[in-house]
Amino acid sequence: MTASRPELRLESVSSRFIGGRSVTMTGQPVESLAISSALPEYRHDGNDTFYIEQAYVQCFVPADRVQDTPVLLVHGGGMTGACWETTPDGRPGWLTAFLLAGLPVDVLDNAERGRAGWCAVPGVWPGEPIMRGEREMWEVFRLGKPEDYEARIPFPDSQFPAEALSAMGRQSVPRWPGNAALAERSLLEVVTELGPCVLVGHSQGGGLCARVAHARPDLVRQVVLIEPHGLPDVSAGAPGHPPQLTVIGDYTALFPLWVHLTGDIRRHTAQLRAAGVRADVLDLPAEGIRGNSHNPMMDRNSDVVAERVLAWLASTRQEAAGG
Amino acid sequence: MTASRPELRLESVSSRFIGGRSVTMTGQPVESLAISSALPEYRHDGNDTFYIEQAYVQCFVPADRVQDTPVLLVHGGGMTGACWETTPDGRPGWLTAFLLAGLPVDVLDNAERGRAGWCAVPGVWPGEPIMRGEREMWEVFRLGKPEDYEARIPFPDSQFPAEALSAMGRQSVPRWPGNAALAERSLLEVVTELGPCVLVGHSQGGGLCARVAHARPDLVRQVVLIEPHGLPDVSAGAPGHPPQLTVIGDYTALFPLWVHLTGDIRRHTAQLRAAGVRADVLDLPAEGIRGNSHNPMMDRNSDVVAERVLAWLASTRQEAAGG
Repeated sequence: MTASRPELRLESVSSRFIGGRSVTMTGQPVESLAISSALPEYRHDGNDTFYIEQAYVQCFVPADRVQDTPVLLVHGGGMTGACWETTPDGRPGWLTAFLLAGLPVDVLDNAERGRAGWCAVPGVWPGEPIMRGEREMWEVFRLGKPEDYEARIPFPDSQFPAEALSAMGRQSVPRWPGNAALAERSLLEVVTELGPCVLVGHSQGGGLCARVAHARPDLVRQVVLIEPHGLPDVSAGAPGHPPQLTVIGDYTALFPLWVHLTGDIRRHTAQLRAAGVRADVLDLPAEGIRGNSHNPMMDRNSDVVAERVLAWLASTRQEAAGG
Repeated sequence: MTASRPELRLESVSSRFIGGRSVTMTGQPVESLAISSALPEYRHDGNDTFYIEQAYVQCFVPADRVQDTPVLLVHGGGMTGACWETTPDGRPGWLTAFLLAGLPVDVLDNAERGRAGWCAVPGVWPGEPIMRGEREMWEVFRLGKPEDYEARIPFPDSQFPAEALSAMGRQSVPRWPGNAALAERSLLEVVTELGPCVLVGHSQGGGLCARVAHARPDLVRQVVLIEPHGLPDVSAGAPGHPPQLTVIGDYTALFPLWVHLTGDIRRHTAQLRAAGVRADVLDLPAEGIRGNSHNPMMDRNSDVVAERVLAWLASTRQEAAGG
């Protein structure tokens, strides 16, 4: 599958944990646990110091690169950095496309997701986590009409590989609805520690990237939002804000949620433009690219959308360097 | 830090989700959640079909390789595949060392860990998860005498970078003590789907690798156990069992737990030898390599230990291919 692609020449593959805090617990139980057949008496003491709320970043540095500034890929809600690696139908994902374009890529698992871990210390995080089920994916990701979920009939021209619905489902991890502020603080810590970077965020991650770009325009060089939600109010101005591209897929008019969210994207874009910021919108169906779901980096035409995003990044790179 | 290392020339970086099952829930609540500022009415219906218990594998294929059979790196309890990537003191880990040796490497996040996700559907998994705290790490990982934890005084010749204790702590993720059978079933599913492979497992992952090597000697070509626990009884024979190397670090005699576990390693090794299997033990201090903790792939001399493991893999490769 990848045989026809050029090889990836990398200076390094590494990872790091960023941010978070430690909590020291008292008054917890001491338990004797059997965690494997040869460990009959493993003593677990809940009175200890635990590290929580850190983020995980996996860093790929191409040997030949067009810039040293990394592109930080920020997953959406219920997802992890795995969403950028391989498409549900088994093709190389945006991670590979970006590396082949000569960009250093940092793949984030934000606090509470994937390898970042999550807080199992009782009473520290608010409320209960939720998981995303298959029907919810079908609707929220715009794979087909809600009434066609039972029969699994996707939109006729859908680019989502419906046969790979379970591969998508197995990428889904628990999330805490009450952790919105933590998610934003965590991304801010990541960007502060990484230094100058380009942000590419999907869905919840798009809203987080928009907020961090607004908070730290000194560090964020360019920002790409893939169907974001949670966009900030920037009506009071956005001094130094980097150039921004927002990508919107197909079928949004059929879902009240997406009518609302595309309206919010227009509001945010207009506010940035009024502040003198370059704010572009890549409306895929308006450009003749039909059938994209909420997750264009996982659709059959993921390479086509990646090419458009990479072209925009290349065209605004000079501008970003000067800004 | 990596500038003096040769570049990594990779045919591909990809990932896949393997195994698991789906559960369809009924009688669950329907909630209206606020998951971001622009999503005022996100409807979450707990009556849906959820994917659980899958494993995640990240696959690195070198362009020039000494074999096509991948080495599957299997983390220990409370850890994820991140433990192989970068040492707590920021150096390239065993992932890089193995790739530079021309070996394809598959890095596992077993079911319940990291990007594999975990089951937040109520009532499906047994009991509560636990987290590993700093004091528990200090003792279980043999970083220093238990009574020296408060002052953070490591063993005088310890190879563990004690200044990076928090970097280690931030790698820790929750685990379910009741999921031992799931962990073994999951690794078995991974090996069955991957096909022929070499297993390298640490701690809990070492015990799992030993069990899967015994269950599927037709698929496991070589097996390396780093301070394993949970080793199977193979007294009834081990037909076709691949060559095995077990690695043991320092200070084991000071801890009753490790006196017990090194005894169990001797029992397992003797059983394999009695069955005519090549079963080697790399007792690091006995070889003059002093100061290793429970996690030699994270210690300051991680490259030294990696070299020994890679040399053993190279020396038994022919044997494995013929077996």
